[in-house]
Amino acid sequence: MIVILKKNPNEKQLENLLDWLKGLNLTVHPSQGATHTLLGLVGDTSAVDIDLLRALDIVEDVKRVQEPYKNANRKFHEEDSVITAGGVSIGGGNFQVIAGPCSIETEEQICLVARQVKEAGATMLRGGAFKPRTSPYAFQGLRGHGLDLLLLAKKETGLPVVTEIMDLSQLPLFDEVDVIQVGARNMQNFELLKELGHTGKPILLKRGLANTLQELLMSAEYIMAGGNSQVILCERGIRTFETATRNTLDLAAVPMLKKLTHLPVVVDPSHATGISWMVKPMAIAATACGADGLMIEVHNDPKKALCDGAQSLTPEAFQDVMNSVNAIRPHAYNFSKEFQA
Amino acid sequence: MIVILKKNPNEKQLENLLDWLKGLNLTVHPSQGATHTLLGLVGDTSAVDIDLLRALDIVEDVKRVQEPYKNANRKFHEEDSVITAGGVSIGGGNFQVIAGPCSIETEEQICLVARQVKEAGATMLRGGAFKPRTSPYAFQGLRGHGLDLLLLAKKETGLPVVTEIMDLSQLPLFDEVDVIQVGARNMQNFELLKELGHTGKPILLKRGLANTLQELLMSAEYIMAGGNSQVILCERGIRTFETATRNTLDLAAVPMLKKLTHLPVVVDPSHATGISWMVKPMAIAATACGADGLMIEVHNDPKKALCDGAQSLTPEAFQDVMNSVNAIRPHAYNFSKEFQA
Amino acid sequence: MIVILKKNPNEKQLENLLDWLKGLNLTVHPSQGATHTLLGLVGDTSAVDIDLLRALDIVEDVKRVQEPYKNANRKFHEEDSVITAGGVSIGGGNFQVIAGPCSIETEEQICLVARQVKEAGATMLRGGAFKPRTSPYAFQGLRGHGLDLLLLAKKETGLPVVTEIMDLSQLPLFDEVDVIQVGARNMQNFELLKELGHTGKPILLKRGLANTLQELLMSAEYIMAGGNSQVILCERGIRTFETATRNTLDLAAVPMLKKLTHLPVVVDPSHATGISWMVKPMAIAATACGADGLMIEVHNDPKKALCDGAQSLTPEAFQDVMNSVNAIRPHAYNFSKEFQA
Amino acid sequence: MIVILKKNPNEKQLENLLDWLKGLNLTVHPSQGATHTLLGLVGDTSAVDIDLLRALDIVEDVKRVQEPYKNANRKFHEEDSVITAGGVSIGGGNFQVIAGPCSIETEEQICLVARQVKEAGATMLRGGAFKPRTSPYAFQGLRGHGLDLLLLAKKETGLPVVTEIMDLSQLPLFDEVDVIQVGARNMQNFELLKELGHTGKPILLKRGLANTLQELLMSAEYIMAGGNSQVILCERGIRTFETATRNTLDLAAVPMLKKLTHLPVVVDPSHATGISWMVKPMAIAATACGADGLMIEVHNDPKKALCDGAQSLTPEAFQDVMNSVNAIRPHAYNFSKEFQA
Repeated sequence: MIVILKKNPNEKQLENLLDWLKGLNLTVHPSQGATHTLLGLVGDTSAVDIDLLRALDIVEDVKRVQEPYKNANRKFHEEDSVITAGGVSIGGGNFQVIAGPCSIETEEQICLVARQVKEAGATMLRGGAFKPRTSPYAFQGLRGHGLDLLLLAKKETGLPVVTEIMDLSQLPLFDEVDVIQVGARNMQNFELLKELGHTGKPILLKRGLANTLQELLMSAEYIMAGGNSQVILCERGIRTFETATRNTLDLAAVPMLKKLTHLPVVVDPSHATGISWMVKPMAIAATACGADGLMIEVHNDPKKALCDGAQSLTPEAFQDVMNSVNAIRPHAYNFSKEFQA
Repeated sequence: MIVILKKNPNEKQLENLLDWLKGLNLTVHPSQGATHTLLGLVGDTSAVDIDLLRALDIVEDVKRVQEPYKNANRKFHEEDSVITAGGVSIGGGNFQVIAGPCSIETEEQICLVARQVKEAGATMLRGGAFKPRTSPYAFQGLRGHGLDLLLLAKKETGLPVVTEIMDLSQLPLFDEVDVIQVGARNMQNFELLKELGHTGKPILLKRGLANTLQELLMSAEYIMAGGNSQVILCERGIRTFETATRNTLDLAAVPMLKKLTHLPVVVDPSHATGISWMVKPMAIAATACGADGLMIEVHNDPKKALCDGAQSLTPEAFQDVMNSVNAIRPHAYNFSKEFQA
Repeated sequence: MIVILKKNPNEKQLENLLDWLKGLNLTVHPSQGATHTLLGLVGDTSAVDIDLLRALDIVEDVKRVQEPYKNANRKFHEEDSVITAGGVSIGGGNFQVIAGPCSIETEEQICLVARQVKEAGATMLRGGAFKPRTSPYAFQGLRGHGLDLLLLAKKETGLPVVTEIMDLSQLPLFDEVDVIQVGARNMQNFELLKELGHTGKPILLKRGLANTLQELLMSAEYIMAGGNSQVILCERGIRTFETATRNTLDLAAVPMLKKLTHLPVVVDPSHATGISWMVKPMAIAATACGADGLMIEVHNDPKKALCDGAQSLTPEAFQDVMNSVNAIRPHAYNFSKEFQA
Repeated sequence: MIVILKKNPNEKQLENLLDWLKGLNLTVHPSQGATHTLLGLVGDTSAVDIDLLRALDIVEDVKRVQEPYKNANRKFHEEDSVITAGGVSIGGGNFQVIAGPCSIETEEQICLVARQVKEAGATMLRGGAFKPRTSPYAFQGLRGHGLDLLLLAKKETGLPVVTEIMDLSQLPLFDEVDVIQVGARNMQNFELLKELGHTGKPILLKRGLANTLQELLMSAEYIMAGGNSQVILCERGIRTFETATRNTLDLAAVPMLKKLTHLPVVVDPSHATGISWMVKPMAIAATACGADGLMIEVHNDPKKALCDGAQSLTPEAFQDVMNSVNAIRPHAYNFSKEFQA
């Protein structure tokens, strides 16, 4: 970490600063330039509050030379992490498609969709039991009962299951769940992240609507700091001024995350666009730029034509997406191959 | 709610839609225009998933005519709500200033700051015991012990206290806290909001970094739907592309929220700007456009000059802010007075 | 266009509104719903100021049923437009890569890069003569002389050339330029757009940093309304809170634009990311989701190793990108094929 | 400017970099820290392309210690600039209100509004002759004839006039205009800015919808670099995800700009909110935090009740705003007074 001091800093304040830095067990290397004095800080700077430092009267700016995350950092773990859940591996060249309905509704529904997505080539099953809804008056999911139904579908099809937790008090119910999902709105629910760091379960961590990639990695770091290094990152669109799609899918996040971290990165084109026909082109594009997997909403319900056109695909449309994704796969960008020889 | 159908809708799909709407206990009034058919929906539309409707193949667009929040809606509760905590009232013309340190550090510290802010005119004390930090390696607050110290300061000064909860498991520790704060990152932690709806405590609900005013009101509605109508809203800056300030303070949110809801609205200029000297002008501006109160970070620690310039003010600077705010108050915009005669 | 009136509208104001609408040669079809009155407007509503209407006291909301653009609208022109410049066609299945240096520096430089990108497979040459720079103290381009050098490179290689205009007074200099580029900062320079509508030249119109897709199409409409329908749209990243990349590349814009308009859509991964190694994955992804072409910065200058790592690629790296793009092309998403059978 | 090199930089590349920097007439002061080498650059760094430097393979990061603007920088011009137009001064404690209609429609209209706003206390008249409209089919203003009418109103009332230029070819028509306005969409129309730098006219420069404060100051610098230092800055809202108001008014920009520059800063609450009743609270807030003036839309036209509720105020409502603004003025924040003693 490099601290750039303002010209002619107040001596008393500088002394206080140096004392404080030493109290953090950092060695300070001052270097006098032509116009400015710089302090090089050596030691473990991950606990330094950079905003605080930057705001000091005598400080012009602070530059972090090391990233504030360690466990998630590719610099300290060059090879891709491979995470295995229910016998299925993701990352390091292993590409997986997680598919299933938005909400678990009935045993018949979840088992039917599970069979259909498996047949189309999905290797993991998703389905929501605890549903984060903007309105308190909207359906909140089947909750514990929904988890039971999901596990029946797992039993029937053998697909590992991914489902969302909304509060750490629900954790005991997730014992047989293969991957625990943390939703975008909980990406900085730090108490939940800490608790998940003490489980032995793979965690699928979705990027928050207004969170930077660095913040996403810091949230992964919360989980990993607790001892659980099985984190899968998920890009699902960020919030911008554009209204033609529900969110703005940030696909450049895929190669950038691959550069910054060794963790697998999946993309959710269903939530990112909110429009069913757009799932196909964006699933193809996500695959092409090197994602380790996809997360796609598929509904059943051929009788109730209601959902046609919503963000969920029919099983037939999902099969079509899978065909295109499989055709793209051999030609996809592979960050690790590009930068290793 | 008005549903605008596409031209020549598929008849089978239309029938399915009408059945589904009737299943939601809504009466449907079709009206045939020159170019389009419209469906007027009468009944309780708050449970209708507008995104789902909008995504249907046969639907051009959907227009909500009623807001999706009821308890928080000024249309159904014209007069300003007044919320009382520890004997201090906010809203309906009652203006309060909540001040105190970012983090509670020691008994001596929190009691000293409490006395200082009280003397300067603050009427409520803030102080963080549970601290949401981006990094797992940063100080996470004194937690339960911090709450104990805060209550000592309350006892000594008589100031009601406001402090942040980070998870619903911490709720039992908040028994003697006067106002429970929900931080920006937890604004859509719906499980927490539901639980707070069953307490009898005033809740200070901060706007999330990427949340619209309607989403803020929906989160207030979660608390109110549980039976607790004591919600204070807090504007604290949103995330934009501008980097000169930490966040972009959206002061137009103040009069707009006053129009949409009867709940009190306070502004936090410390977090919004992240720069101590900017607290004064923005506190003045927030007061001028009709905020019901302010939330300001004040630190003590005259010896440890470290924090000079950070987002916290010294007690002297806070006194200066209070003087200016008090001078502005008689000339401030008052939404309720403007629109009542 | 549908106008939703508030309940019990003021009669005098309603009368004024109806008079005003008739004055715009619109036929008004009122329809009385259970809760609201709606006015269906029939006729050419493209001149109606929707913001003005929406802001009226008696109006609850206004819903545009027709898009405000006509010439650019796919609804009125189902097949893809094919635009030909200097003998090279783009759109309707014709995929082109525009490559070249950021700035034209010398005859030797532009001719060398032109030969190199042609050899690697580029079919059009780009190069900046008039350079929009944030700082008045930065190099502003060779201007007229730069255009002369670019035309020499065109003559030598036969590649059609694309270069940016910054003001309509420069138009006479663009006589032999094949495609005139309008930069992101000029996307709503309406006087320039109008003037370009009277030329017979293909125009490459870049999306502004904070502009919606609808606004991009409205700017295309300015050019087309003047009689020039040869418009190529370019997605080059929008401005968001994320700082890991220079801008946020909105690839969902590609299929969405293909749905809304018949005009060709190209993607500029160089400006969108600002990072040279990211050009490859994002060029692949853009191709995969159905772009009609790419615009890529390539520099020469093997001696001056200075630019290594900037947003420009070396000719060798560009060749590598072309190989990957060519491998992806046969598997790319094709909007028109998807929705025609 | 400080360049932070990566560990163990490639020697050949470092040599190239040092050569390039010397070619820019900069003196380079290397300083070897414990972990990193830093290069302090002394000399005129305003022409250095920071993005280019940052993108070099051997560079970790670059930190600008000096702002890239000189003429606009308060560091080199401590006292507030006072700009005088048509006998009216703004800045340095002089507060002015610019009011008038969105568009100039008829002689009768503009003269009537001019008299009304003057009576209510406005000191400058605004009115649009050249109108930037998103749609080519919307009314584009009376153009040259509109300017003639505006000058008649100036003659009748004595109010200096402010009106927007859209292209530099229109400049000859602006001879008798007192202040030339550059709209948000033209904030980075650099050719126009350069040309305005050669006029002797005060320029009102509006912030672009997605532009940072630093970019606004760089655009002011374009004008000032040409010799014209009479620039008035205008905050008019930025584009964010929030839809409750048309734009998000960034009032923290007011004190921040006052810190960064000596130029006057005015606020336009009409365009920022797009809602007439919100003009009052936001005008008050803008005044309170230290703006040097306001720009407010006022319409006449009591017969044509059409515009009620739009972003324009009636003359009566404007009078009410003026009364409140005048009451706030004596208590407003004054940056220069705060930081001078």
